[in-house]
Amino acid sequence: MNGRVSLVGAGPGAPDLLTLRGARRLAEADLVFYDALVHPDTLALARRARCFGVGKRAGRPSTSQDAITRLLVRSARRGQRVVRLKCGDPFVLGRGGEEALSLLAAGIPFEVVPGVTSAVAAPLLAGVPLTHRGLASAFLVVSGHSEATLRAMLPAAFVEGLTVVVLMGLRTRATLASLLIERGWSPSARAAAFFAASTSHETTWFGRLHELSEAMPEADGSAGTLVVGDVVAIGERLGLTGGTRVLGPSELAEERCS
Amino acid sequence: MNGRVSLVGAGPGAPDLLTLRGARRLAEADLVFYDALVHPDTLALARRARCFGVGKRAGRPSTSQDAITRLLVRSARRGQRVVRLKCGDPFVLGRGGEEALSLLAAGIPFEVVPGVTSAVAAPLLAGVPLTHRGLASAFLVVSGHSEATLRAMLPAAFVEGLTVVVLMGLRTRATLASLLIERGWSPSARAAAFFAASTSHETTWFGRLHELSEAMPEADGSAGTLVVGDVVAIGERLGLTGGTRVLGPSELAEERCS
Repeated sequence: MNGRVSLVGAGPGAPDLLTLRGARRLAEADLVFYDALVHPDTLALARRARCFGVGKRAGRPSTSQDAITRLLVRSARRGQRVVRLKCGDPFVLGRGGEEALSLLAAGIPFEVVPGVTSAVAAPLLAGVPLTHRGLASAFLVVSGHSEATLRAMLPAAFVEGLTVVVLMGLRTRATLASLLIERGWSPSARAAAFFAASTSHETTWFGRLHELSEAMPEADGSAGTLVVGDVVAIGERLGLTGGTRVLGPSELAEERCS
Repeated sequence: MNGRVSLVGAGPGAPDLLTLRGARRLAEADLVFYDALVHPDTLALARRARCFGVGKRAGRPSTSQDAITRLLVRSARRGQRVVRLKCGDPFVLGRGGEEALSLLAAGIPFEVVPGVTSAVAAPLLAGVPLTHRGLASAFLVVSGHSEATLRAMLPAAFVEGLTVVVLMGLRTRATLASLLIERGWSPSARAAAFFAASTSHETTWFGRLHELSEAMPEADGSAGTLVVGDVVAIGERLGLTGGTRVLGPSELAEERCS
């Protein structure tokens, strides 16, 4: 009875942004349960495993969290080496903590393997550092999944030197912009949006806070990484990205990794 | 003239928490300039490279930022494939943005390879998720390097559901605790400190906010990762760590990766 579960962060998208430890766990796995946005080449690292997609993709049917947990527990009890492969980092807006608690309750040996989170990597790959001497010495990462969360979590007043990062916030970006402006951010504060970071569909939008809701088409999912702060100017100077192409709605749902 | 520079995040400490892309850049490198806390086994991945330590370690002499930049530029101009290997993620409190701007100004081709940041991984490896349904839907990462930064960047009033993460904040942790308590956090709010995360010296302290300054010996550096928030309770329940051993001052300076 050597069954165990590794909760592994797959990183922001590109297969080679997985960690060496994550790659080894995949190579040794008997079973892999993966999020919808995990790259096929990442799954290919699990040479001897059967791989099952278990969601989750904005607005589409996916396996429930309870069902995922039951699958993990049942498979480990049969002695399988199981990898639960999650987008980004398992403990950043990924419900990895809940999966870990369920495994603990069921008495299943488990570990958590960190991943590169899109909150940091999506801006980085477009040249935007979350902190930068003289510009920012702190950053706030918020779930944009609900407007109530944004309202509760965004600072009550403007904070100079703070970078704001919103994950899963495309759908609520108009609320993000109006809340920040109400609370003292300049409408011309720098803003950026990063889609499908590190993949061949990677696209970046650089603009201003007041343009955040207009300059991009309505999204049908809650995809992408948004950043508001002076550090965006560094990304514009570094010019690592293809620029400001505006995406179609069908592309916008592609990236939900956190 | 194929010289180029890769700014690579080495991750929180353990060599196998480097990304596959980072490992490939090391394997191909002619020259590696590394931070003081990078693991020897990580450097061993740079099979054909000459490796030079360039700092930085709390309170000890290290190569100046200008000198590092000059080394990178000069080496790339000689056609060398250069890796600048930085603790954690290069764009989280790592001055990677400055190095990138200098390389741009010098006309040197460069890229940035993200790494697993200690801000996320140090808590994770001790079972503490930065977000958790019902407990936290946002987290703030702040440099604890100066008290002025803490004063400016911490929220003006208590925010329920916000996890506070402080990097390089051991020296200023009494200020952190008193500022948060002044601003409405409960003195008995959960707090944790993570040292040398992912290495064989990994140690975790779980406690309460009011104990943050007393329960650990005075640090001679600004090492470790501090977390304040309800999510700490998850780590206590999961019990992934060895517990609450109190470290000696000589150990406390070991970990500065961000």
